Amino acid sequence: MSGPASLGTLKMTITYYHAEPLANSLKSMIPLKEKGIAYTSTYVDLHKFEQHSDWFKAINPEGQVPVLDHAGTIITHTTVINEYLEDVFPDQQPESGPLRPTDPAGAARMRYWNKFVDEHVMNHVSMHGWHRLVGVIARNVENGEFEKLMEHVPLPDQRKKWMQARSGFSDADLALATEKIEYALNKVEAQLGETPYLAGTHFTLADINFYSHCGMMVERMFPDLEVAKHFPRMVKWRDIVTARPAVADALSSEDRTAPGLRTWSGDR
Amino acid sequence: MSGPASLGTLKMTITYYHAEPLANSLKSMIPLKEKGIAYTSTYVDLHKFEQHSDWFKAINPEGQVPVLDHAGTIITHTTVINEYLEDVFPDQQPESGPLRPTDPAGAARMRYWNKFVDEHVMNHVSMHGWHRLVGVIARNVENGEFEKLMEHVPLPDQRKKWMQARSGFSDADLALATEKIEYALNKVEAQLGETPYLAGTHFTLADINFYSHCGMMVERMFPDLEVAKHFPRMVKWRDIVTARPAVADALSSEDRTAPGLRTWSGDR
Repeated sequence: MSGPASLGTLKMTITYYHAEPLANSLKSMIPLKEKGIAYTSTYVDLHKFEQHSDWFKAINPEGQVPVLDHAGTIITHTTVINEYLEDVFPDQQPESGPLRPTDPAGAARMRYWNKFVDEHVMNHVSMHGWHRLVGVIARNVENGEFEKLMEHVPLPDQRKKWMQARSGFSDADLALATEKIEYALNKVEAQLGETPYLAGTHFTLADINFYSHCGMMVERMFPDLEVAKHFPRMVKWRDIVTARPAVADALSSEDRTAPGLRTWSGDR
Repeated sequence: MSGPASLGTLKMTITYYHAEPLANSLKSMIPLKEKGIAYTSTYVDLHKFEQHSDWFKAINPEGQVPVLDHAGTIITHTTVINEYLEDVFPDQQPESGPLRPTDPAGAARMRYWNKFVDEHVMNHVSMHGWHRLVGVIARNVENGEFEKLMEHVPLPDQRKKWMQARSGFSDADLALATEKIEYALNKVEAQLGETPYLAGTHFTLADINFYSHCGMMVERMFPDLEVAKHFPRMVKWRDIVTARPAVADALSSEDRTAPGLRTWSGDR
């Protein structure tokens, strides 16, 4: 703050704008901590719709967390942020090995899984989370007031999702999402029968991705799937990931969600 | 075949399994040609459902083209293939510059656009293409015979898409897809007002992605959108991309689609 700062130090300044340590916000927080990158943490309060506020949209016009600000270079979307951190800090790696494999075939396996989680997992868990959490928040807003809030949501798809969360997702949509999650769990379980981590022998960004969007909360959120019984390798893998000091540190960061609404995070 | 081949030559052997030069199959063919990588081209005949045949599923269990076989290392999914080619052949680049920017911020912009095309463009153009082309192919198969073919489709989502293509997508779904394409065109048009290419000053994998999945065919496939009138920068950019020798070369490769069904490719 008041100390001397060289231009070099300023140039390296990183700010991470994020919400609760789960899903997207967790997904880029883990690599920052695994790599030991110093950063300023700025909490964006989704309960107060801060992600749609003018000050935040001046940083990310899409109005979504998280955002990485690296000395003025703004990076959004967690899969992109995490590759960026590998490009900028290739040598800062956990003892377990690089988060992005350095051999091209390994990097391809990591990206294959990242794509699968981004396109076939994330949105389905998210729908259940929105249904149970964001829907409650949205319904607590008065008519008229809600429509005004929606005017501040820049992405049309995101606006639709808010409106659907308020009215409630259909049983058919929720059932389809559960089916996709079960498909993903089977796929992960099969992979973990071949290799200890998703992309091979080492912990990578692919594990961080599936963990943040599904692995960490799937057993608690979907008791009907009997996760412990049907996906024992996934549970063991999840516990290994949870026990990593960087992950534990990330999970312990601020959570302002009302305890009754902690569908994703559970009681902390 | 019968000539002498050193182990070194064998190790570099690349085979690209692909269908017609459009969408996915085009998307990884362009980088191969832009980078001047020698490869064996193996045509997979989608009109004969070869992608679901046992010989092909032995190569890609997901039963989808294209596939890159690099001396036995199998890479699938075009965004992953294209990053892999950058990782393996970083120095083989067109005169216009590297297909993946070498500065981290540039690579992040490229990946931002790749993600956008993969998640918010590709499937929507694809739905219209399937409706007009694959639906006709699927309806030409007898009942009973069709169900048998479906048993060979390994991905459940893909099976659903085939069945939907056969019965026809709903007007509501098709209209929503068109709306998303229009949104994408507006976004691209705005970006091309800022920079000559999607990720900045140079032609990159992001341009190849949008071109292959939307830019090359959008004007012809969606006359109602009045593309030339509303998206003049996109049209100019498209013509610049089409004129690149590597792109022209890729576009001239084999197309077995019956002329009347060339919804994507048009008359060649």
